[in-house]
Amino acid sequence: MELLLDRERFVATMQAQAEIGATENGGLHRLALSDADKRVRDWFAAQLDAAGLSTRVDAFGNMFGRREGTRDVAPVLVGSHLDSQPYGGIYDGALGVVAALELVRELDARGIGTERPIEIVNWTNEEGSRFQPTLQGSGVWAGVHDIDAEYARTDDDGTTVEDELERIGYKGSTPAEPGEAYDSYLELHVEQGPSLEATGADVGVVTGIVGLRWGAITFRGEANHSGATPMHHRKDALVAAADVITQVRRLPSTLGERTVATVGALDVSPNSINVVPGTATFTYGVRDPSGDVLDDAVDRIHAATEAAATQEGVDWEIDERATATPVSFPDRCVDSVERAAADLGYDAVRLPSGGVHDATNVHRVCDAGMVFAVSEGGKSHSEAEYTSWDDCHRAANTLATAALDLAGVASD
Amino acid sequence: MELLLDRERFVATMQAQAEIGATENGGLHRLALSDADKRVRDWFAAQLDAAGLSTRVDAFGNMFGRREGTRDVAPVLVGSHLDSQPYGGIYDGALGVVAALELVRELDARGIGTERPIEIVNWTNEEGSRFQPTLQGSGVWAGVHDIDAEYARTDDDGTTVEDELERIGYKGSTPAEPGEAYDSYLELHVEQGPSLEATGADVGVVTGIVGLRWGAITFRGEANHSGATPMHHRKDALVAAADVITQVRRLPSTLGERTVATVGALDVSPNSINVVPGTATFTYGVRDPSGDVLDDAVDRIHAATEAAATQEGVDWEIDERATATPVSFPDRCVDSVERAAADLGYDAVRLPSGGVHDATNVHRVCDAGMVFAVSEGGKSHSEAEYTSWDDCHRAANTLATAALDLAGVASD
Repeated sequence: MELLLDRERFVATMQAQAEIGATENGGLHRLALSDADKRVRDWFAAQLDAAGLSTRVDAFGNMFGRREGTRDVAPVLVGSHLDSQPYGGIYDGALGVVAALELVRELDARGIGTERPIEIVNWTNEEGSRFQPTLQGSGVWAGVHDIDAEYARTDDDGTTVEDELERIGYKGSTPAEPGEAYDSYLELHVEQGPSLEATGADVGVVTGIVGLRWGAITFRGEANHSGATPMHHRKDALVAAADVITQVRRLPSTLGERTVATVGALDVSPNSINVVPGTATFTYGVRDPSGDVLDDAVDRIHAATEAAATQEGVDWEIDERATATPVSFPDRCVDSVERAAADLGYDAVRLPSGGVHDATNVHRVCDAGMVFAVSEGGKSHSEAEYTSWDDCHRAANTLATAALDLAGVASD
Repeated sequence: MELLLDRERFVATMQAQAEIGATENGGLHRLALSDADKRVRDWFAAQLDAAGLSTRVDAFGNMFGRREGTRDVAPVLVGSHLDSQPYGGIYDGALGVVAALELVRELDARGIGTERPIEIVNWTNEEGSRFQPTLQGSGVWAGVHDIDAEYARTDDDGTTVEDELERIGYKGSTPAEPGEAYDSYLELHVEQGPSLEATGADVGVVTGIVGLRWGAITFRGEANHSGATPMHHRKDALVAAADVITQVRRLPSTLGERTVATVGALDVSPNSINVVPGTATFTYGVRDPSGDVLDDAVDRIHAATEAAATQEGVDWEIDERATATPVSFPDRCVDSVERAAADLGYDAVRLPSGGVHDATNVHRVCDAGMVFAVSEGGKSHSEAEYTSWDDCHRAANTLATAALDLAGVASD
């Protein structure tokens, strides 16, 4: 059966979360485990309590609220994340958490019981901006990462994840692991790219998630006076970095149709107008639906790094930071989302996700599926991110209807 | 007559200044108008007082000590700067200030009077690292810059030069201007490049200073999710920056024999592994003995910037920050330095300066000349900067002997 969420209440809840960590330009500055993250967690915990859910916070800060089912069977898990990029938008993962919350509110409002329990979740540190890696909370929960290793990760100031979890009061008491079998996981997220909008469809039925390889490259040359050092005496770390950045830009056009490759961050030292750069450290990220293409891409980045280092006479070092193998969602989840959209009368289209999501990790524990909302202009991880309330609502209704399908309506 | 400075006292004075703002790696962190700069200024003021000089601090923090001559004629000015790069070496400008101090001490120790007064000087903010532009104090003094405009310059934290001068107690009471005619100016500095060492000579006789053009370029594209944004939808500011950095690296090989071109600083926003860079701002600097070559170089950087912006679909902006026209020192100063080296029995070589120095500005007020000390391996603006005490001493003796020549030994 179709489950249409109360639009006014849904929009109000979206607006309420968007005020926490709001930026002047209408975006969010809500980095994982920051004060703003603590405030939005406190807000979310209050909503879970108010909805009468039985709540728990696990040892890695993942927050759960459970609505019991009528049968003693594995639950359906629904959610996403509330943390943001340094200057991100108000939709991103928050839309998926709000939609999960509105799902249980709508079931309560209509007095609908489900056979399976429904759990809603806010994962810790999906973004991987302040603390790497990305998808950290769901990765610990799914057993992809060792919890002690992730506790010890530090931000740029040297503060650890564990210290911040304790400081904001979200190092919970339950183990950061499934603890029981889960039937399935559903996640709503904005697409974060222009592909869905380009099709003209209302919602996206996500078929899987492309894999990724992340790393950082450091070139070490010699910091020298920029006026007195002849060109042929230089070992310029930034020039070597520029060579690799150019190669990373052209990499996709030599690999797969869906390959993307990015240098997102670059830090130069001493970073003075008057000094030849001695050190340059930058990140790379490559994504593709094929693991072979990813391996090939990383090999080529290594080769470009060595070539640039030789050319400029600098030393180099590559630090591989994260790997996500490509994911295909099982038919029962993809079909359930597609049926939900059809039952609601929406025009839906199947597409893979270009970004990784917590579903990448949860997929290791149980069947998973995703719904995409339209990202206007494909803008994401930016304050300019925008999805109309109509598109948000349609995607949330699709999520709710699919979740109800997987959980099963209880007979009276 | 030759003036050999007391080697032990000279080295001890060099070591004393090197302790102020010392880094773990044997360098200096003594940014202009910082707490460390205040401490080295306090130390220098105490040395001036102890040497019995009549002292003054001008309204821009330039510090002077004057030893009177026997005749009522224009003085000879000798000095350099005590501020450092973020992580610079202990020689740089400090060697020139210490040599000037040791010159008046040696004259006192030997009871030698001069016809002309000798003034020694420590210029404010030569480096231009914390506050731009470089050569700021001598530029204000020489009338190159308007004092109010320079007072209002800010560091990265938004603190102004004027506030910092007041905070550290070095906004002096005398006008920041010559106030009288000067006969000449001599400055000792380390070469900061490998050219002098490559000749095998003991000291360098500087014939002039190459000109420079400094600026900053900003590219503005679109910050977007690095996974979900297809390559052809990107407007990547860092990729455009990389194009220009590569062009700046090859620029010298298409222009003059002595042209150098550098991108020293680069800042990326939002600088996250997972976001296509929305903004990239970087500096450029070009130096050459010919003003025409500098104009040509800047034109080519503009053209490269436009081409990169078009290629990547980003907006661009160029902010020209500093211009120094090439300088030729007058024969009387160059000859005086060369004679001094010869009288001392040193092997000297004539060469231009690749770096700008306060002499660039003082040259507008009076005849100027410079002495270079060997920079081992050409390393400069780095903690690894090194000049042997023998080379420091030889260059300081050359400076002292030339200054005595210009000031004239007083007859008893």
